[in-house]
Amino acid sequence: MDKENQEKLKKIAKLLRYYILLSTTEAGSGHPTSSLSSVELLATLFFAGFFRQDLKNPKALYNDRFILSKGHASPLLYSLYTVAGVFTKEALLTLRKFGSIFEGHPSPKFPYAEVATGSLGQGLSIGLGMALGIKLRFFGHYRPVSHFFSTQPEPLPFVFVLLGDSELAEGQVWEAISLGGHYQIDNLVAIVDVSRLGQTAETMVGWNLSNYQKKFEAFNWQVYSVRDGHDIEEIYNVYHRLIKENQPWPKVVLAKTIKGKGISFLEDKEGWHGKVLTETQLKETIKQLGDVDFKIKGVIQQPKKILIEAGNKVDEKTVLVIKKLQKLASTSQSPSSKEKNPVATREAFGQSLVDLGLTDKDIVVLDAETANSTYEDLFARRFPNRFIEVFIAEQNMVSIGVGLACLGFKVFLSSFSAFLTRAFDQIRMAQYSNAHIKIAGSHAGVSIGYDGPSQMGLEDLAMFSSILTSTILYPADKVSSAKLTSMANKLPGIVYLRLTREKTPVIYSEEEEFPIPGLKIHSRENSNFPNGKKILVIAAGITLSEALKAQRNLIGKNINLVVVDLYCPKPLDRNLLKNLIKTYPKIIVVEDHYPEGGIGSLVSKFILEENLSVDHFIHLACRKIPTSGLPQELLAYEEIDHQAITRAALAI
Amino acid sequence: MDKENQEKLKKIAKLLRYYILLSTTEAGSGHPTSSLSSVELLATLFFAGFFRQDLKNPKALYNDRFILSKGHASPLLYSLYTVAGVFTKEALLTLRKFGSIFEGHPSPKFPYAEVATGSLGQGLSIGLGMALGIKLRFFGHYRPVSHFFSTQPEPLPFVFVLLGDSELAEGQVWEAISLGGHYQIDNLVAIVDVSRLGQTAETMVGWNLSNYQKKFEAFNWQVYSVRDGHDIEEIYNVYHRLIKENQPWPKVVLAKTIKGKGISFLEDKEGWHGKVLTETQLKETIKQLGDVDFKIKGVIQQPKKILIEAGNKVDEKTVLVIKKLQKLASTSQSPSSKEKNPVATREAFGQSLVDLGLTDKDIVVLDAETANSTYEDLFARRFPNRFIEVFIAEQNMVSIGVGLACLGFKVFLSSFSAFLTRAFDQIRMAQYSNAHIKIAGSHAGVSIGYDGPSQMGLEDLAMFSSILTSTILYPADKVSSAKLTSMANKLPGIVYLRLTREKTPVIYSEEEEFPIPGLKIHSRENSNFPNGKKILVIAAGITLSEALKAQRNLIGKNINLVVVDLYCPKPLDRNLLKNLIKTYPKIIVVEDHYPEGGIGSLVSKFILEENLSVDHFIHLACRKIPTSGLPQELLAYEEIDHQAITRAALAI
Repeated sequence: MDKENQEKLKKIAKLLRYYILLSTTEAGSGHPTSSLSSVELLATLFFAGFFRQDLKNPKALYNDRFILSKGHASPLLYSLYTVAGVFTKEALLTLRKFGSIFEGHPSPKFPYAEVATGSLGQGLSIGLGMALGIKLRFFGHYRPVSHFFSTQPEPLPFVFVLLGDSELAEGQVWEAISLGGHYQIDNLVAIVDVSRLGQTAETMVGWNLSNYQKKFEAFNWQVYSVRDGHDIEEIYNVYHRLIKENQPWPKVVLAKTIKGKGISFLEDKEGWHGKVLTETQLKETIKQLGDVDFKIKGVIQQPKKILIEAGNKVDEKTVLVIKKLQKLASTSQSPSSKEKNPVATREAFGQSLVDLGLTDKDIVVLDAETANSTYEDLFARRFPNRFIEVFIAEQNMVSIGVGLACLGFKVFLSSFSAFLTRAFDQIRMAQYSNAHIKIAGSHAGVSIGYDGPSQMGLEDLAMFSSILTSTILYPADKVSSAKLTSMANKLPGIVYLRLTREKTPVIYSEEEEFPIPGLKIHSRENSNFPNGKKILVIAAGITLSEALKAQRNLIGKNINLVVVDLYCPKPLDRNLLKNLIKTYPKIIVVEDHYPEGGIGSLVSKFILEENLSVDHFIHLACRKIPTSGLPQELLAYEEIDHQAITRAALAI
Repeated sequence: MDKENQEKLKKIAKLLRYYILLSTTEAGSGHPTSSLSSVELLATLFFAGFFRQDLKNPKALYNDRFILSKGHASPLLYSLYTVAGVFTKEALLTLRKFGSIFEGHPSPKFPYAEVATGSLGQGLSIGLGMALGIKLRFFGHYRPVSHFFSTQPEPLPFVFVLLGDSELAEGQVWEAISLGGHYQIDNLVAIVDVSRLGQTAETMVGWNLSNYQKKFEAFNWQVYSVRDGHDIEEIYNVYHRLIKENQPWPKVVLAKTIKGKGISFLEDKEGWHGKVLTETQLKETIKQLGDVDFKIKGVIQQPKKILIEAGNKVDEKTVLVIKKLQKLASTSQSPSSKEKNPVATREAFGQSLVDLGLTDKDIVVLDAETANSTYEDLFARRFPNRFIEVFIAEQNMVSIGVGLACLGFKVFLSSFSAFLTRAFDQIRMAQYSNAHIKIAGSHAGVSIGYDGPSQMGLEDLAMFSSILTSTILYPADKVSSAKLTSMANKLPGIVYLRLTREKTPVIYSEEEEFPIPGLKIHSRENSNFPNGKKILVIAAGITLSEALKAQRNLIGKNINLVVVDLYCPKPLDRNLLKNLIKTYPKIIVVEDHYPEGGIGSLVSKFILEENLSVDHFIHLACRKIPTSGLPQELLAYEEIDHQAITRAALAI
């Protein structure tokens, strides 16, 4: 790197510092010190030709990608694009103000943020997902391939992720490190800003770069160390070597930095995390900075023509596929099997995934080592290149899914519904990234029996319904499971499919459709008592067949159960449900879930918000800590089986 | 180890295999192959004098502890205690049956299980918590001390944790490895059963012990390798060396094993995870096993007298402390400050912790690097030995808390409420371990403002209320926050304290008491309109002061708001609430949380279950994805501020 460019980058670094301090003081909050430590690392990445991005078309496939995993350093990210001339200083100064695209932590409102970050430790998994996705897009598989033209060696688009050293304490980061090394995802580059200081005190490792190096190497990463993370020449040389060598492994740059760098009273000081300068302090520091060149511009490298052409070709193909699919989407998939014997909804899910995968080449399926329980293994055998085993690491699985969704893939992932709780934070964040991912949770409820409570998903409906924009689907038989899986593929946002371990009777014919929102009504003439007391039983999943059994149990009594299959608990089909409740104000809700946050809660709040009046309301749910046992024993123990429903109906 | 003992252990191993196969076939489900791989590792640990346990008094402080992190190998654990003569074969054969203490995955119903396991990757963190706790009990701190008597060097009680190799893919395991190495918790011993095969296929690392070794060593663990995890002599020698050396680091035994070991058609075969033998297959394998000595007994080593005496002394002290505390508990703590200016509930929480810590020596406080935001740093400064920094690793924090709770510590832990979602699986499992832990989540709701949605806890009430046995407390001012913190300290199970970032006005006098369950009624004579329309406003936390403002706003109107401070959303004070709703059937619920699973849901379901009739029900909650902004702007944007409440009241 020549002196001239070095001098230019130094000036840019100064301007970045100025913007960081000014914008955070103006906002009255933010994390200037955590931004200051990364200034040289990012200025060199962005403005010395390493990071290749078409500013007008940042989501095109030919671009490199950048993820700010340490999301609290957002002032730096925003300042970089201001220095690049994309935003004005005035715009930047709306930082953290209501309505601004410059939010406290990056979100996709900012056009150059791929995803929302700010919950630490997720960025590397997302980057891993994107790096995998880039390989999938270009090659149709994710095995190690560093260059897409061997004759003219231009590296594949890279995904750069900037991490703070503090967040390396999050286990999820090691899940991503572990998997990235295992699959040799060589277009993933982590840059770790090792500033020694966390929010409250020194990290476990401090400035001991060689300790980090040992760790990364043990997980098969290629390590590059920067002894002085503020020395532009050293950083330049390291980046240059990294890209030139392009080793067939994921890469990490470990850079020793100083938190608060550039301002004497902030440098390497505890107690300054997440604190901004006062107006007076700001004036003082601007003096310290010396002459700032406000006119200087940083230039982000445009990707090479060869890369743009190749990327566009892939993009076109993708667009074609998507267009075709949209036509196909009008005729919904149905499973080929005409089997009338009971089938588990999880099995129908797995079969449906294969059917969908045949025509929809954008479907990618992720597994955390339960594929043979959730029947994703059917997809894995048929489409091994679009199946990604992430091993037992649910957090990593969800964030990789977010990364893949950024590239337009339709992501399905699954685990036991109980273990999805492990990834609540990642699911919560996915909604802020506008990610479209479909999550299947099998083995829901006590009806799994033998394995005991640790394996039973009894809080999953509460978890997924709390996500503001989620859709929840809960099939009761194989037909509805296949149809709802196919519907899920067309739905935006976070879609949760709740699946049952046990085989359940086939209730619907192959022709039945399952609109969303929607529900199904199963009434049955009680010819003995045509004017019998009508009771509405709202059930779903495993409790639907129990409710239908109860309906039959009561044939001899003066009671007529109108059974509802609430296959879409969220959003509710408000019109249909309202009419039903008005017609049948005696209600039993029965679900295989703990009492709070499930179907009982959703229906209760609906009734009150709609100002409906109800004569009776009985909520049957799991009110005791379950144990091991037979599925039927447990349904009986929790009083959510057909006998409990019958008793409740008789009590009304 | 002499030949005789070796032969005896071999016979025991055979009997264990017999029990494992018989009990799982009898149960019709379970994980025999994952149990078979660990037979020699545990037979040698338990019956060759390494594991020291008083069978009659397994919870006494002088015992070693054992945690089966790979909980699906429960048949082996149960068989060990059957071979030790504690249970009969007939009892063992109730495995997985309804009402049995031998559940599919271990739970504290089994008297020799410390905690519930079965969600993989949590055991090492729990073990780390227990190992830390043992140090705290014996020495009052957790700095490296391997022996409690230097003159007669008897090692401190060890905590042994058996892990499967598959679960090493879980990030939480690396959180525990990382922290254990950092604090040199040298009485923690991990034993990894490296059988190569996960549930669906080979793990990332396979049988590559040296790769695991590199990783553990990078995290400062002392590594011991066993090349043949079925060779009793080799295992014996390794355990012997490990305990004799007792290096000042946590230890790991990496043992190469064979899944399904001992039965030819099961050994190292895919497709046998979680599958049991048929009756016919069982007969065949029993033949393969050859002569089984049904009379052989394993003897678990009694701890040495010197250890028992020391342990009892500490136990006595503990018991004394607890008794004293129970007396003290009747006079509840109150904060000393008489400050009338607004104080954030999180700050009052932190101050209250210090007050409690002065008299209650069993309180231990955990932090994941937000102590200066949740005000736990006040406790850290006052009681550094009872404060444990776990760095940014919320999953590890919760499971360490469970481990400490096993030793009778009263555990408080905190983070931003948003980031607690990261540990939902661990919290869910904690209830099955009967753990008493108090979890504080600060920065709840959109009212944090500037930092944006990634930092806002908007699903936390849904998460904690879904836990069957949880208590939820949500203070609105500094007085209630201090009092509720003190109440939390006396409550069993999982207690969640929801805290607010912003300063809130002081509402209560220092004398006010806050029983659980309970609520406070704030009515205000509207002298202009003594017969004005009465509307019940149910609020909590930050929305309480908004509701009180709305009450004042409406002074000039013919409306009288009866404001309820629902400081204990779960369990609800059913009597008080019932009477209130009967008296005031026009209701507004207002909360800083997404619409589903929070206070609106809890109150709705209550109303319906109690069959109360309501004229109006308006639920004000966060119905839009929030952004950065001023706290008041965001409360207004989400329509949960005093103006929104006023509008809703006028609309009724």
